Amino acid sequence: MSVADLAADMTADPSGQSLGEAMAEIGRDARAAARVLAAAPRDVKDAALMAAAEAIRAGSEAILTANAADLEAAGNDLTAAFRDRLTLSEARVEAMARGIEEVATLEDPVGTVIAAWDRPNGLRIERVRTPLGVVGVIYESRPNVTADAGALCLKAGNAVILRGGSESARSSAAIAECLRAGLREAGLPEDAVQLVPTQDRAAVGMMLKGLDGSIDVIVPRGGKSLVGRVQSEASVPVFAHLEGVCHVYVDAGADLEMATAIAVNAKMRRTGICGAAETLLVDRAVADTHLMPVLEALYGAGCAVRGDAEIVAAARFAEPASEEDWSTEYLDAIISARLVDGVDGAIQHIARYGSQHTDSIVTDDPVAAERFLSRVDSAIVLHNASTQFADGGEFGMGAEIGIATGKLHARGPIGVEQLTIFNYRVRGSGQTRP
Amino acid sequence: MSVADLAADMTADPSGQSLGEAMAEIGRDARAAARVLAAAPRDVKDAALMAAAEAIRAGSEAILTANAADLEAAGNDLTAAFRDRLTLSEARVEAMARGIEEVATLEDPVGTVIAAWDRPNGLRIERVRTPLGVVGVIYESRPNVTADAGALCLKAGNAVILRGGSESARSSAAIAECLRAGLREAGLPEDAVQLVPTQDRAAVGMMLKGLDGSIDVIVPRGGKSLVGRVQSEASVPVFAHLEGVCHVYVDAGADLEMATAIAVNAKMRRTGICGAAETLLVDRAVADTHLMPVLEALYGAGCAVRGDAEIVAAARFAEPASEEDWSTEYLDAIISARLVDGVDGAIQHIARYGSQHTDSIVTDDPVAAERFLSRVDSAIVLHNASTQFADGGEFGMGAEIGIATGKLHARGPIGVEQLTIFNYRVRGSGQTRP
Repeated sequence: MSVADLAADMTADPSGQSLGEAMAEIGRDARAAARVLAAAPRDVKDAALMAAAEAIRAGSEAILTANAADLEAAGNDLTAAFRDRLTLSEARVEAMARGIEEVATLEDPVGTVIAAWDRPNGLRIERVRTPLGVVGVIYESRPNVTADAGALCLKAGNAVILRGGSESARSSAAIAECLRAGLREAGLPEDAVQLVPTQDRAAVGMMLKGLDGSIDVIVPRGGKSLVGRVQSEASVPVFAHLEGVCHVYVDAGADLEMATAIAVNAKMRRTGICGAAETLLVDRAVADTHLMPVLEALYGAGCAVRGDAEIVAAARFAEPASEEDWSTEYLDAIISARLVDGVDGAIQHIARYGSQHTDSIVTDDPVAAERFLSRVDSAIVLHNASTQFADGGEFGMGAEIGIATGKLHARGPIGVEQLTIFNYRVRGSGQTRP
Repeated sequence: MSVADLAADMTADPSGQSLGEAMAEIGRDARAAARVLAAAPRDVKDAALMAAAEAIRAGSEAILTANAADLEAAGNDLTAAFRDRLTLSEARVEAMARGIEEVATLEDPVGTVIAAWDRPNGLRIERVRTPLGVVGVIYESRPNVTADAGALCLKAGNAVILRGGSESARSSAAIAECLRAGLREAGLPEDAVQLVPTQDRAAVGMMLKGLDGSIDVIVPRGGKSLVGRVQSEASVPVFAHLEGVCHVYVDAGADLEMATAIAVNAKMRRTGICGAAETLLVDRAVADTHLMPVLEALYGAGCAVRGDAEIVAAARFAEPASEEDWSTEYLDAIISARLVDGVDGAIQHIARYGSQHTDSIVTDDPVAAERFLSRVDSAIVLHNASTQFADGGEFGMGAEIGIATGKLHARGPIGVEQLTIFNYRVRGSGQTRP
């Protein structure tokens, strides 16, 4: 069913029953498309991506017209940041097209033999990468997510059901049509990419319940309230992080200059990303030498400092931190700071207040470094590097659909490989089990 | 808190509030123990397992006394199968001890570097296996699951919260105490193994909600009704399969003798296991030569046959199958059978009616075999081998805690390695992100 048909369907009978039926049909169409995508060879999937990128370039004018209509409908009540995320330009459309082409260049994980072994009875067992199946992506009014998420899911052989924010509905529909055009051109089912054509919020609830087993995993892309709703309501698995309460721990063995550079970069390079540091921990053993230079560098870079009594006593510019501060993701030029008793004190603080996202130790002491790396239970732990490297691109994984802090399937950046799973293929010569 | 204290606590105030507090405390104690287990080296974990096995041997009399009390309390209303699963003997206690010792001999996956690479900026990135954290196991009245599941979770560095069936409460408590004694002897926290000491069913509901983030994954061990309840109510991830509707497909290229042997073994070796075949598919192209010999062999082995009109017309002993039969897991000496149009017909039938558990093709045609292996989206697909090999032990993975048919984290047998996840450890020399 085309998006236009479906929209007409819903308009004709906008009752809950019709929405449920329409969503169930989206699910069934996605599952059927996923079966074809799972068996598609790399060159066909890549051809679809390249054709989609070309369709976006060729459709730039239509996309920008749709975006202008979105912006006009949204009116003037948007925050500047919201409007910026919603707004497309020729350069941003070109960036989307290039992003899709880059995804096409990534290795195809599907079909890779991860492990293989022989059994004494002659059975040959292989563990082989397979697509996940159908991915549901729920995102806010950032039209480019339509292209990014769609391309990544396709590359891994999955079908995707996209549900973007209402303010970007026209822009997202125009972009989704380009992805579908690319699929058609490569001879693949266009329903491997479907955009939910209604803004009825009940549709999101249905996706979170999996559309009768048609969705294998949900990826929320957006702020904490969106992710929180998805995590609490979803009955299908979710790849997400609710927040990144990231720490930089300056150990007694830290080179002061390095510690200062890493702390300032981790906090201030970009304060609004999930890998930005929110808390500075300093080893009490070097409080006299290391604390004030690092705090002053942060303050000098425009960062507000909140700390416990020791910090407030030491730095006149520091304000008292509340208990809540230690688990707060500021996403702003604010840092909480405290002294801890060595690496074990840091590990304990992070276990209590952290969000298992990304944490870094600065030290020249290899024993302290290994203790931190092996005992901090976060998706990403770093030694002598900034927490802002928490990013699939920086990891060399190509594009990412997000960063996960759950304990199942994949932690850290979710790239093409993490959008796959495996099965076992067993080859015999007539073996029966005794 | 010891099991005895907790039981006393609950007896003193058996209100809902008290249960909630007691369960929350179990969760917190498990999380704290999991942190220690995660950092425990292999030899310490193995020492705990060996000591637990010895404690089970030394405590054999106490375990059998507890089991006798369970059997007496259960009375005579049990089915023979239920009573058999509940009953322990000296031989079964010894088998439990040996099972734990075997788990100790397995490779420790924790700390294994799965992948490692260098970035142009000098960052060294490693993906390293880590424990999952806290595993909740919900099982029926099979006391041996206490030992099997507990040992596997410990080996992988996890804490485990066990909740067994009420009829086996005394037996399970006696066995759990042996595991805890092993932990104590090795200097590990005994709360890495906790048995929920109440039979209040609300405790299961609390576990399914994760005890405030204290449980990372739930493993149900038991029949379809238990697994179904866990899957529908759990808000934490679940490793499970609801059922195994497994297929044997006899392709036109099949050796008839091999097809017959595999079909009979897949169905009849043990009919009650999840890897037992439930449906026989035969390529219409060889209906004249292959259908009746295979059906007669099954019937001759004591298997009832249900089929569609073509099967009923061909075999006088076949009864008509209903639409429901095609998706039914009989777990009994019954098989449904139908003709399909080649390997693609088999793939379509399995996609529609299968349960993504285990399916097998019998053929000497390598093209048909590869098509089946790559297009049947089940946890385990086999070529020229019986579906009854669907088992962690048969795969050479050692003991398993179950077989999963979900699409996330791990499919197929869940052994020690599948009870782990990974994180990223990044080593730098002062890198900041530009």
